[in-house]
Amino acid sequence: MRPERYVDLHMDDVISDLQTLIRQPSISAKNEGIEECAVLVGKILKSSGITSEILRLGKNAPPIVYGEIISKSNPDKTLLFYNHYDVQPAEPLELWDHLPFEAVRVGNKIFGRGATDDKGELITRIKAVSAYLKTVGDTPCNIKFVVEGEEEIGSPHMKKYLQRYEKKFSCDAIVWEFGYVDSKNRPIIGLGMKGLLFVELLVSESVRDAHSSLAVLIRNPAWRLVEALNTLVDAKGHILVKDWYKETRGFSKKELDIISSEPFDETAFKKEFGIKSFVGKKRGMDAKKALVGGATCNIAGIISGYTGIGAKTVLPRQALAKLDFRLIPGMNPERQVKRLRAHLKSKGFGDIQIRVFHGLAAARTQPTDPFVCNVVDAAEESFGSSILSVSNAGTGPMHPFVDVLGAPCISVGSTYIFSRIHSPNEFARIDLLKKTTKCMCKIMENFGKC
Amino acid sequence: MRPERYVDLHMDDVISDLQTLIRQPSISAKNEGIEECAVLVGKILKSSGITSEILRLGKNAPPIVYGEIISKSNPDKTLLFYNHYDVQPAEPLELWDHLPFEAVRVGNKIFGRGATDDKGELITRIKAVSAYLKTVGDTPCNIKFVVEGEEEIGSPHMKKYLQRYEKKFSCDAIVWEFGYVDSKNRPIIGLGMKGLLFVELLVSESVRDAHSSLAVLIRNPAWRLVEALNTLVDAKGHILVKDWYKETRGFSKKELDIISSEPFDETAFKKEFGIKSFVGKKRGMDAKKALVGGATCNIAGIISGYTGIGAKTVLPRQALAKLDFRLIPGMNPERQVKRLRAHLKSKGFGDIQIRVFHGLAAARTQPTDPFVCNVVDAAEESFGSSILSVSNAGTGPMHPFVDVLGAPCISVGSTYIFSRIHSPNEFARIDLLKKTTKCMCKIMENFGKC
Repeated sequence: MRPERYVDLHMDDVISDLQTLIRQPSISAKNEGIEECAVLVGKILKSSGITSEILRLGKNAPPIVYGEIISKSNPDKTLLFYNHYDVQPAEPLELWDHLPFEAVRVGNKIFGRGATDDKGELITRIKAVSAYLKTVGDTPCNIKFVVEGEEEIGSPHMKKYLQRYEKKFSCDAIVWEFGYVDSKNRPIIGLGMKGLLFVELLVSESVRDAHSSLAVLIRNPAWRLVEALNTLVDAKGHILVKDWYKETRGFSKKELDIISSEPFDETAFKKEFGIKSFVGKKRGMDAKKALVGGATCNIAGIISGYTGIGAKTVLPRQALAKLDFRLIPGMNPERQVKRLRAHLKSKGFGDIQIRVFHGLAAARTQPTDPFVCNVVDAAEESFGSSILSVSNAGTGPMHPFVDVLGAPCISVGSTYIFSRIHSPNEFARIDLLKKTTKCMCKIMENFGKC
Repeated sequence: MRPERYVDLHMDDVISDLQTLIRQPSISAKNEGIEECAVLVGKILKSSGITSEILRLGKNAPPIVYGEIISKSNPDKTLLFYNHYDVQPAEPLELWDHLPFEAVRVGNKIFGRGATDDKGELITRIKAVSAYLKTVGDTPCNIKFVVEGEEEIGSPHMKKYLQRYEKKFSCDAIVWEFGYVDSKNRPIIGLGMKGLLFVELLVSESVRDAHSSLAVLIRNPAWRLVEALNTLVDAKGHILVKDWYKETRGFSKKELDIISSEPFDETAFKKEFGIKSFVGKKRGMDAKKALVGGATCNIAGIISGYTGIGAKTVLPRQALAKLDFRLIPGMNPERQVKRLRAHLKSKGFGDIQIRVFHGLAAARTQPTDPFVCNVVDAAEESFGSSILSVSNAGTGPMHPFVDVLGAPCISVGSTYIFSRIHSPNEFARIDLLKKTTKCMCKIMENFGKC
């Protein structure tokens, strides 16, 4: 029997194992059920015929569940599945139609926190491997599972795990933990993710708030913050920090072709957000290039003084801005922080305190990598179509995987774009679970062959 | 007997009437005890021999208590006392050592909300008039009392009251409701107050917050606000709006002399606020001129996006700034709003919504006005010294009085600068109540004679 046929016949197993996983809460933000869920994932791996092991880094890091199958027929090629067993908090609870950890099935849907993100996605990988073992008795290549427990809080220990277990995790290709399926059921195959640098700028002036009549003499830190911010970008969003783009490169011909063929409904997008035009009046190909490869400096938050209702004449003592910079390939977060610091100093704002929260570089797999072809073919066969994307506009911890393991890394759609991940009534579509499981079988097969 | 001697002998009356007044809460912000306190003030005026009347403007405006004495000896000259019977809320209650409306006397102090601001100040005026009536049987000039009930919430109906009762309130000079006594017991004689324009600027972009990865396409309203604000002032605090200073004038020779002789301890001021230098590196006479006559554009508040702890990558839909502009003589609030609007439009920010909260022009009495001399002499005699000030750095509703009644208006110290007005444990110093009451007697006498 073909493994794909086995999947068709055994969807009940997929569903019941997913329900079991959902019913074990595992909220990393609250450290709730993490250990228990790691143990459960290990059990599910084992019962699916996959060797499993709990890896640890120290007391403060949740464990990683590691799984492995050595292929008898093809032991020189390894595919790694990266997933996570932790979930977002379920709040606000009152907005759920069913209990978030009840895993209720209604028709084609399974409702629950983590139903899709990422327990649903994890189960498709496990069940694809299991289908191979049950039918062929072997996998087309070695398989490794790296299932972490902190993705929803920014994967703070992932890089250290990768460095510590570099040899154990060594592989030739990586399937990323998530990927979207668009509203027309087309899976999006993503070859990269942008990086992120998140900083706070704090301007302090006097030791306490003052009556605003004293603004004739006491400098207002909000004014200084406004002045400093205004030196960072121009009206088109171009970042004015010296050498900010120095190590970046343009798109290759192949990347431009992919961008050009990616669908993007400008009118629908503008309607969705109620806007009339884009930053810098971008249109068409320029807008698509920006989504895939534009760097930004975004004011995620700014606050100073009195922000309640009505009027209060106060001269605040401090002003704070939170900035997120999306980084593109070539930008190193540490180097960019140094440049930001030098920029502020050179403009007379050396006293502004810079606090760095995250720094994560971008990652991008070359479209010419043979693994891309394996994934595209598998997706086309399983979903009937696919969309190739040079990079997600968002950020994920893809860079340490690509950097430490030196392997191509691709995300492939399994998550329906409107499946309410991180929101109440998150659900998984059973039809997509099936297609994705079969797609994973196909990816293993294609990858094993090449 | 001289009225001043009568005051010396009857301080117990001053104290007990003040205690009675404090014990009647009158919190305008909560509309608590306002009517009751107006009636009580009327009673105290009557029992002091002053004709009294409750004036009304409509249902929403608290009443004004009006009091009047027509002088038998000098019925052609009128002095008006402006005061208020409302007080600030007493919260936080747990920080009071005695109940805020108990009016406990401890040694030289009477504690309670309103003990100084403005019930203590009001009682000195009433008792000065009463002392004249009890001793001389007449006042040296006509006396009018205008005691409002909304000063602590910005005197929203005062201008309308002045216009409606312009004839009734007509006078030749006005004594302002408050005035400070400095830490060396020197009363400050203030000839003016700055005006204030308080506005909100609101930038709206999309219909909802977006994931900040979309900052490549969706404009960030916080950036537009920062850009817009940056066009308003230069680094020295000079306002860049066209014609902002057009109708203002410099200081006269006499005003410069006064400013020059006003004490100002720069070092102590800087130490108090923990700052090393002033805006635009001002020093000496420039700093003093700024306090008395500098216009400002102050960011009293700014907010957009996520302002909690940690990082959140959001692209906010709106950004808001609260600005207070201190106005100097010649600046008309309505005209300045028009200029601000035109400025933003001309810089490409015509979409920014401007919401005007208050607009109040500055007021300044000429130092050459004979009433200044009357007050200075009275203060010198009662307090042993005085400090003349061209204008307070702060704002008060002095302009409509000066404008509608066409009379000079002067504030004269009676409030100890550290008497915790608006704060827990507000108190009045009995020695200052006595000196101020005698000073008011003297002002009436001097004014009646000239």
